[in-house]
Amino acid sequence: MHNGMSQPEPDLDAILRSREPGHGLPRAFYQTEALYRLELDKIWHAGWLFAGFTFEIPKPGDYMTLSVDATSLIVMRGDDGAVRAFHNVCRHRGTQLCRNETGHVRAIVCPYHSWTYSRQGDLLACHGMHDGIDKKSLSLRAVATETCAGLIYVSLAERPPAFAPLAQEFGPAALPQGFERARIAKVMEYDVPANWKLVWENNRECFHCTRCHPQYVHANFDVYDDHSASDAIRAQMAAAVERTSSKWAVQGIAITHRHGGLAPFPDPDRDRWFAADRTVLAEGFQTESMDGQRVAPLMGDYQDWDVGVLRMRSMPNFWVHASCDHAVAARLLPVGPRCTRVRGYWLVHENAREGEDYQLDKLLPFWSLTNEQDWDICKWQQKGVDSIGYEPGPLSKRMEYNVDAFIRWYLKHMENDGQMTPLSRVA
Amino acid sequence: MHNGMSQPEPDLDAILRSREPGHGLPRAFYQTEALYRLELDKIWHAGWLFAGFTFEIPKPGDYMTLSVDATSLIVMRGDDGAVRAFHNVCRHRGTQLCRNETGHVRAIVCPYHSWTYSRQGDLLACHGMHDGIDKKSLSLRAVATETCAGLIYVSLAERPPAFAPLAQEFGPAALPQGFERARIAKVMEYDVPANWKLVWENNRECFHCTRCHPQYVHANFDVYDDHSASDAIRAQMAAAVERTSSKWAVQGIAITHRHGGLAPFPDPDRDRWFAADRTVLAEGFQTESMDGQRVAPLMGDYQDWDVGVLRMRSMPNFWVHASCDHAVAARLLPVGPRCTRVRGYWLVHENAREGEDYQLDKLLPFWSLTNEQDWDICKWQQKGVDSIGYEPGPLSKRMEYNVDAFIRWYLKHMENDGQMTPLSRVA
Amino acid sequence: MHNGMSQPEPDLDAILRSREPGHGLPRAFYQTEALYRLELDKIWHAGWLFAGFTFEIPKPGDYMTLSVDATSLIVMRGDDGAVRAFHNVCRHRGTQLCRNETGHVRAIVCPYHSWTYSRQGDLLACHGMHDGIDKKSLSLRAVATETCAGLIYVSLAERPPAFAPLAQEFGPAALPQGFERARIAKVMEYDVPANWKLVWENNRECFHCTRCHPQYVHANFDVYDDHSASDAIRAQMAAAVERTSSKWAVQGIAITHRHGGLAPFPDPDRDRWFAADRTVLAEGFQTESMDGQRVAPLMGDYQDWDVGVLRMRSMPNFWVHASCDHAVAARLLPVGPRCTRVRGYWLVHENAREGEDYQLDKLLPFWSLTNEQDWDICKWQQKGVDSIGYEPGPLSKRMEYNVDAFIRWYLKHMENDGQMTPLSRVA
Repeated sequence: MHNGMSQPEPDLDAILRSREPGHGLPRAFYQTEALYRLELDKIWHAGWLFAGFTFEIPKPGDYMTLSVDATSLIVMRGDDGAVRAFHNVCRHRGTQLCRNETGHVRAIVCPYHSWTYSRQGDLLACHGMHDGIDKKSLSLRAVATETCAGLIYVSLAERPPAFAPLAQEFGPAALPQGFERARIAKVMEYDVPANWKLVWENNRECFHCTRCHPQYVHANFDVYDDHSASDAIRAQMAAAVERTSSKWAVQGIAITHRHGGLAPFPDPDRDRWFAADRTVLAEGFQTESMDGQRVAPLMGDYQDWDVGVLRMRSMPNFWVHASCDHAVAARLLPVGPRCTRVRGYWLVHENAREGEDYQLDKLLPFWSLTNEQDWDICKWQQKGVDSIGYEPGPLSKRMEYNVDAFIRWYLKHMENDGQMTPLSRVA
Repeated sequence: MHNGMSQPEPDLDAILRSREPGHGLPRAFYQTEALYRLELDKIWHAGWLFAGFTFEIPKPGDYMTLSVDATSLIVMRGDDGAVRAFHNVCRHRGTQLCRNETGHVRAIVCPYHSWTYSRQGDLLACHGMHDGIDKKSLSLRAVATETCAGLIYVSLAERPPAFAPLAQEFGPAALPQGFERARIAKVMEYDVPANWKLVWENNRECFHCTRCHPQYVHANFDVYDDHSASDAIRAQMAAAVERTSSKWAVQGIAITHRHGGLAPFPDPDRDRWFAADRTVLAEGFQTESMDGQRVAPLMGDYQDWDVGVLRMRSMPNFWVHASCDHAVAARLLPVGPRCTRVRGYWLVHENAREGEDYQLDKLLPFWSLTNEQDWDICKWQQKGVDSIGYEPGPLSKRMEYNVDAFIRWYLKHMENDGQMTPLSRVA
Repeated sequence: MHNGMSQPEPDLDAILRSREPGHGLPRAFYQTEALYRLELDKIWHAGWLFAGFTFEIPKPGDYMTLSVDATSLIVMRGDDGAVRAFHNVCRHRGTQLCRNETGHVRAIVCPYHSWTYSRQGDLLACHGMHDGIDKKSLSLRAVATETCAGLIYVSLAERPPAFAPLAQEFGPAALPQGFERARIAKVMEYDVPANWKLVWENNRECFHCTRCHPQYVHANFDVYDDHSASDAIRAQMAAAVERTSSKWAVQGIAITHRHGGLAPFPDPDRDRWFAADRTVLAEGFQTESMDGQRVAPLMGDYQDWDVGVLRMRSMPNFWVHASCDHAVAARLLPVGPRCTRVRGYWLVHENAREGEDYQLDKLLPFWSLTNEQDWDICKWQQKGVDSIGYEPGPLSKRMEYNVDAFIRWYLKHMENDGQMTPLSRVA
């Protein structure tokens, strides 16, 4: 008889060992529910997650919520001005407390039995309970929170990895961009019908840009590597680097990535799960817009448009492209093995007024097109890798070195024996 | 290596042992598919389920259908006037036989191959079958059925628990209400996106009423316990009890629950899975309506409006609040670990005519509001307990003793070794 | 304690052994995910699947796509005029290549990174890859393909069963029908909410036709067996057989099934997974239309309308009824344990013009009604067999011998120890 009766639980170790070096991930990585649960433990509940921007919750009592799989978090500014995060769950019966994406409260009052928490998460009142309740033990469950350069990060780990290395890199790099003094011009939320790793694999190479993102390749040099860049392109890159480097009008705008192709990221061998660099734009492009013309007032400390593009990203859920006049960020959150929720942000200077200082129809298209093109790719990737006919192919050493780096970073964290925190934790 | 490969089937014993006394249930109770399947076996397929009212199927051949998870039942009045229930499945190829919620048939004829069953479930004809078919062995599979005070109960158990104790309590208590002589003014069916236990936990306390049900607390005393009732409230309760008790115009309307707070139910220690009691209404309330004024003609044998509220409930799927002029009932049926189908019934006297004797816009709001407020709570409860941040909190000994009682009742039945029938079965 | 903790993976062997001879299949066969996965391996990924018609892709570069569960295939005519099938998955990163149901290409160019394949599946170009890529090893993964009498079959098996026996039977039988010279008048795609085996069990008997398909029984004799046919019916069948047999105007139109009832199929004892036969129509019916009148010009080589109906079918996914003037085919594809996608085809002569030579409102109703009646049955079958009240009943030896044959064919393939190919493979 066949051994159908012994069809076991998926052997996650065997899956994790099944990747052939230099190739993509096998099919089981993109569809196995139990592996997805392990990814939540090893990566999403372990590392630092970008949650939002400090300017979104400027005043004490302002909050935002976000969900990592089924786990909802409140990110709130406290009475002391500090940003904190809590599990969005009442300590009494478990009701979800804050039910909007953003809001403002004087105290967090449970909509079920009126348990009342301070903006710092302390249980203030629980009328109707019996005597002897230890309110001190019933504060909202805190979630590690850090801020840096206007970015809010949270970690569901009990002992999160060190945040300081990211802060040391992002802080100076982002200083002139002034994310703290930005505002949201537009948010778009996408439910991408694909595993979150497909979204990253798509993000980690510009091999596909020529075919899929015509608007993007006009502005950027990513698509060129040493083989594909012509002498003219090389000269154009060099001129742009030279021109920008010579200005240094503002601290921190030196071009740090001077070549075609994507800057290497992530780097599992050096435990680099975050990176910031500044790249040049193509001739005629002042910003990442359809025609290269600026689409909003200068942001932050910039005195001149000629600052290239500040790019930052952190594993597993954040990237941003910041031009002189606006920035476009993405926040990824896992919804299931085949669904990833991506929040796209378009930021401008806090004083910029829609209709006067900027027009959405000029501001949005460059990245709304790029986003939608990518999510469409991801959808068809998921369909493809779900097939029994899928076999991982070779990754281009010229163009897909960062896809390989992402896969190695991922596998290193997944194989991390019993550790719930990323390897990048400082010992 | 991590031991992801050994991710086992959920250990249901470990889950069932994981509840801390005096606290809510841990997360796994509300989302584990295998536990839900065990609940079907131990509770839903074992005990007595409220199915509907006898007046819904007054004539031989009248039927109603209902589904317990994926199992559909026919409840039919036979030629002898008795109410019987059958599995709604043809004994030939298994087609669902009756496909409407209610109807009338001369015989049950299978829509696939015309196998024909009597209204008592006997196979009358199966033309086209070969010789030698033993029709007697191919009657519709019977499901245990009992009626009491106009209520129809069914049990999927082979040996159901004793029904007599319920009948002995509900019969006299419900006599003056006259459920047999009622009619349905309105039915509303709700798919509540929450585990069925969350629906009961919500139902078993009025701790939340002040915040969530403003219309309800005007009419009822449930929200007051010894601590929270003022002297004025206590005096009002006492006066109402006194006034009603002194009238006894009709047998069985003595007030049986004379205090604030909910009457204790269920009681796992005494195997009480059903209960009936009569409570007073607040000053100025003749019935459970928005303004306290009657909304329909008196029901049953009532000669006077001053009868308080008859409340009855039975585990795991029924409750009713019956005032002098109308009654509002709920029937719960499980759809999945995160979905419960609730049918809300509004009953009036069988002779009452809509538009003349009652207006729906007066009759419905009190409980349609209360229902919808509760289902909204349940939705957010499910979201909350699905979070990894959820930890069961303490239950108020003053206000949530019945939530604790429900949880203990539930655990007792789930731990009942191998028995498919409730503990309440008479030995 | 109960033994809930040991709830095992479904024991597929036990399920496969659980069928009582002469009865339907038990409940677990229609809802168990793991069994469905085994069916994909043992049946859907093992045997020959009807994919479409050769005339659908007449020119080199024409293609169609279809999906077997999550596995998408491309069926394409190559530069040499041969029909080939490939996995619809890029050998690079796995993207689904062809995203429409039908189309035409000069080459298959991946929409992600422009890997380019010939119409025969050879990798022609992969610009951007590093040196040393072995393009020969990166052709599209071929899927076995055969054609016969205008029908295209594919097999996902590495070593498919012999196709020649089918070709030897279908080729001569279908010759006069001229499927190669047909065109599609209409396609309807149905997602039937039922297990694929329920669709076949419904198809394999006409016991239900009297009740469910009034239009069908007017035209056909299937519903009559030796017991139910009157002398008048028998005389009518004999006259039709005699009349047709005497004409033999065209090779291959001899009536081969001369009796009432369905021709026996499949036959697990003789490994017959395909069959073709020709039956007579009822008096007054020239074709399978509502009124029996022709609804399109004669197809193929037919010189006369009096050719009865050519019926062909092959396990697990194809059947066709072909009259003198049109043919109606069905292609089944599994979507999940409770969903089957059925594509219905209405074919006419390639030169027939809609509105002139045929009217859709005359052509479609006979089979669109029959199809929709059957899918409705299947929906209620699934609901019925999902109930815990379902027990497989006896199959009529007179009317359901082919349902029994289907179940035995199915079980034989499922129990085939470790073999991924049907038993019908020629040794």
